[in-house]
Amino acid sequence: MKLTLYTDYSLRVLLYLASAPEEKRLVQIKDIAQSYGISKNHLMKVTFHLGKLGYVETIRGRNGGLKLAVLPEEINIGKLVRQTEEDFHMVECFHEHSSCILSPDCKLKGVLYQALQAFLSVLDQYTLKDLIINKEQLASLLFTEKEPVRRDPI
Amino acid sequence: MKLTLYTDYSLRVLLYLASAPEEKRLVQIKDIAQSYGISKNHLMKVTFHLGKLGYVETIRGRNGGLKLAVLPEEINIGKLVRQTEEDFHMVECFHEHSSCILSPDCKLKGVLYQALQAFLSVLDQYTLKDLIINKEQLASLLFTEKEPVRRDPI
Repeated sequence: MKLTLYTDYSLRVLLYLASAPEEKRLVQIKDIAQSYGISKNHLMKVTFHLGKLGYVETIRGRNGGLKLAVLPEEINIGKLVRQTEEDFHMVECFHEHSSCILSPDCKLKGVLYQALQAFLSVLDQYTLKDLIINKEQLASLLFTEKEPVRRDPI
Repeated sequence: MKLTLYTDYSLRVLLYLASAPEEKRLVQIKDIAQSYGISKNHLMKVTFHLGKLGYVETIRGRNGGLKLAVLPEEINIGKLVRQTEEDFHMVECFHEHSSCILSPDCKLKGVLYQALQAFLSVLDQYTLKDLIINKEQLASLLFTEKEPVRRDPI
């Protein structure tokens, strides 16, 4: 069981933007892609969608870039995951037109639905702000120029 | 977010075996495959694994077949799902050797882990017996010879 890469990348983009220090308030997709070692093309789709959802703002022009469109405390993780996951069809019978012969009388669907709600309820308790309470450490990982690793001679 | 087909099929095989009326105590994989409209080859792998896990017993010979090796109340759904899911790596950073630059200081992993535990805790409250409390209806869906649908003339 896993979340989609789409959700994973969406969360990472938001973490990146929320961790950016004041002097790097506008960030470039290529820098996000480079930091995480993931495709710029994937991130373009993700950031476009995050923009449509109202979480990310794009400032155009030579000195443009991306920034959060709302405060981190206004981005609820449960709501975000509901918006970025394609669906929550835990098993075949969650589809509207299930082909499973048991669908009319199956108790499994209800049990899995209850478990899914418990999963999402936990995420509902958190906002992006809770995920960047250690903003300085995150910024240090994301925005510090890396020096070559120095190894002591053996 | 979804469970694997492997878990879906495992649950369906167990529901089938637990719903079987006394006179069909030993069932054939081909009948399970036919009832659900899924590949017999897939089900052979699933039933082999369920056998190794101690849930299913295979009686060999001409009148042989499959049956539950334990009582339905002894099959916990949470435990089963932990055994049939390949992993619970909700996002990339759940992997032991995560490539995500944030891994050392990321709070997201803990939040998703907490949500996953809430999901599994709900499943832990149920056994296979709870899923067949309407055994007669399930048996009627699975084991009744279907008559051709009769349509009233318009």
